[in-house]
Amino acid sequence: MLRTHTCGELRIQHQNEKVTLCGWVQRSRDLGGMTFIDLRDRYGITQLMFNMETHKELCEQARNLGREFVISVTGSVAERSNKNLKMPTGEIEIIVENIEVLNTSLLPPFTIEDNTDGGDEIRMKYRYLDLRRTTVKNNIELRHRMAIETRNYLNTLNFLEIETPFLIKSTPEGARDFVVPSRMNQGEFYALPQSPQTFKQLLMVSGFDRYFQIVRCFRDEDLRADRQPEFTQIDCEMSFVTQEDILQTFEGLALHLFKTVKGVELNKFDRITYADAMKFYGSDKPDLRFGMKFVELKSEGEKNLTAGKNFVVFDNAEYVGGICAQSCSEYTRKQLDELTDFIKKPQIGATGLIWMKYNQDGTLKSSVDKFYAEEDLKQWAAAFDAKPGDLILLIAGDTHKSRKALSELRLEMASRLGFRNPEVFAPLWVLDFPLLEFDAESNRFYAMHHPFTSPKPEDIALLDTNPAAVRANAYDLVINGVEIGGGSIRIHNKELQHKMFQVLGFTEELAQSQFGFLMNAFEFGAPPHGGVAFGFDRWCSLFGGSETIRDFIAFPKNNTGRDVMVDAPSTISEEQLKELNIKLV
Amino acid sequence: MLRTHTCGELRIQHQNEKVTLCGWVQRSRDLGGMTFIDLRDRYGITQLMFNMETHKELCEQARNLGREFVISVTGSVAERSNKNLKMPTGEIEIIVENIEVLNTSLLPPFTIEDNTDGGDEIRMKYRYLDLRRTTVKNNIELRHRMAIETRNYLNTLNFLEIETPFLIKSTPEGARDFVVPSRMNQGEFYALPQSPQTFKQLLMVSGFDRYFQIVRCFRDEDLRADRQPEFTQIDCEMSFVTQEDILQTFEGLALHLFKTVKGVELNKFDRITYADAMKFYGSDKPDLRFGMKFVELKSEGEKNLTAGKNFVVFDNAEYVGGICAQSCSEYTRKQLDELTDFIKKPQIGATGLIWMKYNQDGTLKSSVDKFYAEEDLKQWAAAFDAKPGDLILLIAGDTHKSRKALSELRLEMASRLGFRNPEVFAPLWVLDFPLLEFDAESNRFYAMHHPFTSPKPEDIALLDTNPAAVRANAYDLVINGVEIGGGSIRIHNKELQHKMFQVLGFTEELAQSQFGFLMNAFEFGAPPHGGVAFGFDRWCSLFGGSETIRDFIAFPKNNTGRDVMVDAPSTISEEQLKELNIKLV
Repeated sequence: MLRTHTCGELRIQHQNEKVTLCGWVQRSRDLGGMTFIDLRDRYGITQLMFNMETHKELCEQARNLGREFVISVTGSVAERSNKNLKMPTGEIEIIVENIEVLNTSLLPPFTIEDNTDGGDEIRMKYRYLDLRRTTVKNNIELRHRMAIETRNYLNTLNFLEIETPFLIKSTPEGARDFVVPSRMNQGEFYALPQSPQTFKQLLMVSGFDRYFQIVRCFRDEDLRADRQPEFTQIDCEMSFVTQEDILQTFEGLALHLFKTVKGVELNKFDRITYADAMKFYGSDKPDLRFGMKFVELKSEGEKNLTAGKNFVVFDNAEYVGGICAQSCSEYTRKQLDELTDFIKKPQIGATGLIWMKYNQDGTLKSSVDKFYAEEDLKQWAAAFDAKPGDLILLIAGDTHKSRKALSELRLEMASRLGFRNPEVFAPLWVLDFPLLEFDAESNRFYAMHHPFTSPKPEDIALLDTNPAAVRANAYDLVINGVEIGGGSIRIHNKELQHKMFQVLGFTEELAQSQFGFLMNAFEFGAPPHGGVAFGFDRWCSLFGGSETIRDFIAFPKNNTGRDVMVDAPSTISEEQLKELNIKLV
Repeated sequence: MLRTHTCGELRIQHQNEKVTLCGWVQRSRDLGGMTFIDLRDRYGITQLMFNMETHKELCEQARNLGREFVISVTGSVAERSNKNLKMPTGEIEIIVENIEVLNTSLLPPFTIEDNTDGGDEIRMKYRYLDLRRTTVKNNIELRHRMAIETRNYLNTLNFLEIETPFLIKSTPEGARDFVVPSRMNQGEFYALPQSPQTFKQLLMVSGFDRYFQIVRCFRDEDLRADRQPEFTQIDCEMSFVTQEDILQTFEGLALHLFKTVKGVELNKFDRITYADAMKFYGSDKPDLRFGMKFVELKSEGEKNLTAGKNFVVFDNAEYVGGICAQSCSEYTRKQLDELTDFIKKPQIGATGLIWMKYNQDGTLKSSVDKFYAEEDLKQWAAAFDAKPGDLILLIAGDTHKSRKALSELRLEMASRLGFRNPEVFAPLWVLDFPLLEFDAESNRFYAMHHPFTSPKPEDIALLDTNPAAVRANAYDLVINGVEIGGGSIRIHNKELQHKMFQVLGFTEELAQSQFGFLMNAFEFGAPPHGGVAFGFDRWCSLFGGSETIRDFIAFPKNNTGRDVMVDAPSTISEEQLKELNIKLV
C-alpha cells in the first residue's frame, strides 16, 4: 500500500510513530513560520504541519500545493498544541518529513465543503467532485451499509438472492418500458424490467420459497421531481405464507435496519386499513410522527354538528371535517390567510378554509360566527377534543377532494409546528388496499398494485357485482409519510388469474401473449405465495434525513433523464443503427 | 406460516411431534396396504406414509395426487422401519392425518430428477420446472453463497459496494453495445454498460478508495457457446495501491471463497508471466492441475537437439517442442493416429505430430527413427526428463501456432489421463501481459485489456519505438485453465492517457467525445489506482464443477440471445416505436 494509515485513524496513542498518509489537500493555512495542511481521504482529515525554520524547502513545497492536489506524505505523529476535539484526529498532527505529489489538480469549479458554493447543475456535471464532499460521501456509505445489513438479515432467514434477467419482454401494462433493439433477432426488442415481478413469481413456482434481490429497475416515465429512470428495489417473495407472515418478516428487516444502521430501537409497527388512512389522514401514506387526526363534523350516516344553521356551504357539502392544531389559537389574520391561500393552490384545489379559535381564556371565535353560536362551537371543540389555545381548521365539499386537501393542510401545519423531525420515525403498515382503481378516461379498471395481486377471499364474489369494493391482500410500509414499500399476496390459482385479467379488460389473446408464460407456469403446481418490494433509494434517503433520492445515488440522472456528466443519452453512428435495422424518424 | 417445518429438517429426535409440511409430490409408491409419497421442497425430501387399513379415505386421496401437485400435510413424525441413511431425513416418515391440495399440476414435460429425460430446449422453455431439479437448485444456492461471502469479505476490508448506472453512453471501442432509444431525448440512445470501468475509475477520483460491485454487464456479441448477452461481474477498484497490493487483496478473497464455499484450504497462488505462460503452456490461461510443461528441442537462441540430421521438417521449423505424457509409451498406432487427427483439426491447425516412446525396457522408438539415432533420442528424453514408460509428443513449425496446438494437445492428454478433476484446484496469477495487440486487418493496435491500462513504467519509452513490446501492469487470475478474472493498474496521469489514445489511433476529437469526462476528471486530482473484475457466472460454474455458465444463471438466454421461456425479444407496438421516434428498416 502507498500508505500506512488512513487520514481518519491516527490518535494520540500513535504519537511518535512514523506514518505515510495519502489524500487530497482540503485546505492549507500559511501562518508565516508554519504551514498547516488538512489532508483528506474517505476516512477523515488529518492535519499536516510544516515548519519554515527547520524545513524551509519542504515548507515552501507545501505552500505550492493547490486545493485537491493528491499527495503522499511521510512524517511522525505529534501531539497538537491546539487541539480540536470535534475531530476524531484532532489531538494530533503529522510533522511532515517528505511530500510526494501524486497528482496535481485544476481548481475545482465549486468548493469541496459540506456547504458548497456549487449549484445543482455544476455539481451534477462534476459529480465525481461532488462525491468528494463529506455529506454526499456519507450518503453513499449509508447506502452500502443498508445493502449489507439487508442482505445479511435476509440470508440469515434462508432467503436466497437470485439474479433475474435485465433483457426481458415488453409488457404494455403499467408504466412505459425502456426497450432494447435486438441485433440478432431483427425487428424485435427486449425491454428493461420495471420490476422482477413475474420472475420472482416463477421462482416461487420453482420452489425457491424465499427469494430476494437488491435490483435495478427501469421506468420510462416523464420525470417528476425526484423520479429517476433507473432506481433500485429490495425485491422479495415468499411461499407457503399468509399476509401476516410477510408483515412479520419484513417488519423484522425494518427493525434490523433501524437498529444497525440508524441505532434506533423501535416497537411493533402501527397498522391501519386503507379506508381508515383515508378517513383519518386523507392519504394512503399518512405521516404518523404527529397526530392531527381528521374529525368529521358532518359525514354520511354519522353525526352532523353543522346542520340547521342556514350555513349553505356546510349544508350543501358532502363532507365537513378538519384538524386541530395545538397552541395555534393566536394565529394572526395574515397567518390564516396564508393557510387559505395554501389550500386554494391549484394542485390542492380546496375552495376555502373555515377556522375556529379556542382562545386561552376559554372563549371561542370562528370565521363562521354569523351562523354558529358559541354553544355550537363548543360542540365542535368537544368533537376535536380541543383545549384552550388550539386552532381548528375545517374544509367542506366533496369527500375525496376535501380529505386530500386536509391531508396537505395537516402536513403543512406539522411543518410549521416542527413536528416533522427527520430523526423521529413513525413506521406504519397500511392494509386492505382496494384491488382495483377505475379510470374514467379509459373507462376501465386498473390493478391498483398489479394484475397478480390476490383479492381478499371474502371479497372475490364482489368481482362480478362491485369490483370497486373488492379489497386486496395488499399492504404498504409507510414511514414518516413516505411509501417505503408495498406488496401483496399473489394469485396462485389459474382460474382466479383469468378472472382478474377479464376484469382488467384483457382479451384472452392479450393475456396469453403478455403473461402466457406465467399462466402456463401456474398450471404446474404454483404454491401460495406473496411478497413485497421496497424502494431502496427512498429508504436510504429517509435514513439519511433527506427528501431527495438523487443525493443517495452515486451517478443520478437529471430531471430530463440525462446524465450530464457522461453526456448520455447521445447519438449513435449510422453503422450502429444499420446493424440494428432501425432508422430515426 | 402454512408449515411448521421444511421437508429437509425432521430427524429421529422429532419423533411423535405433530408437524405440518408443504411441498411438491416427487413420487408416490402404492404398495397395496400402504402408500408412500416423497414430498419435496427446497430443503429436502420427506417420506409421507398413508395406511390403507387405518385411513382408507386419506390413503385413496393420496393415491390420486399427481406428480408435482402442491400439498400441505399434517401428521406425526415416526421412525421408519426401512431407513434410508443416504437421506438426512431418511430415518423418519410422517404418518399423515390430513392432506390439503394447495394446487394441482399438469404432468411436467420432463421428469424433475437429477438425471432428467428433458432435452436442453424443453428445459429452457420450462426453466421454472428445470429449476426444481436438485442439481440446478444447488447451483443457484451456490451462487447465492458466493455472492454473500464475497460481499462480506470485501465489506470487512472496508470496500463499499456502490451501484453505477445502467443507462450510460455508447462507446464504440471494444465489443458492441446494446443501446436503448431515449423517448425524452429523441434521436439519442443510452447504452447498457459492458462493464462499469469508467464509473469505477471516477469513484477513485471521488476518493472512494475501495469500491466493489456485483453487477450485471451487457455485450451484444455474436454468441458463442457459453456466452450470454448479460452476465455478472465482481467488479473492484482500489486507490493508493501497487499491483502487489491488488494481487494480495483478491488472492485473499479467492482463498476466502475456496474455504467458505468449497471447504478447500489452499496455499499461496502460483504466479507466472504472460511470456512464460506462452512458452511453457502455449496459453495465457494454463491449467496447472498437472505438469506436462513444454520442452523445446529447438528454439531461437537456445540449444538445438534436432539439427544436422537432414530432417527437413525440423530443420525448416522455427520451433520444435513438445510435451511428455507419463506412462503412455504403450499407446497404440490407433491412439497415436487419433492424437494426430486431433491436432490437425482446422481449429487447431497443426500439420503433424511426431512421437517418441521411451519404452519400459529402456529402448527408444520414434516416428522419426529414419533421421534420429537412439543416441539423439536419448538426448531428447533427457531434455524432457522422461522416464521409461513415457511418451513424448512433438510439434514443429511456426512458434505461435505450434504452441497453441501443443496447448490443445496438452489439455487433451490431461483429459485422457484423468488429470482434470473438477474437485482439484490450481489457481494461478498470470502477470505482465502485453499492453497492446496488433490487428493486421485494421492495421492498428488495440488495448489488450482496455485503453486505461497502465504500461509498466520501465516500458513507457517503448510506446514510441516498439509498442508491441510494452508490457502492462495487468494480471489475470486463472483457475484450472479458466480465466476467472483480470485487471490492471490504471493510467491516472492525463498525459499518459493522451499518449495511449494516440497509440490506439484515436483522434483527439474521438477521445474527447468518448472519454472526455474521464480525461477531464483526471485533471482534478486522480489518485493512483487499479482494479480487477471477476466473471461471477464462470467462477460459480468452476466451483460447481461444471463448464456451462448457463447452469448457474436462473434465467439464461439461449445461443441466439433469446429467452425462450418468456419469448423475448419480441415485437413492440407501432405506438411504442412512434413514441421513440424510430422505425424498423
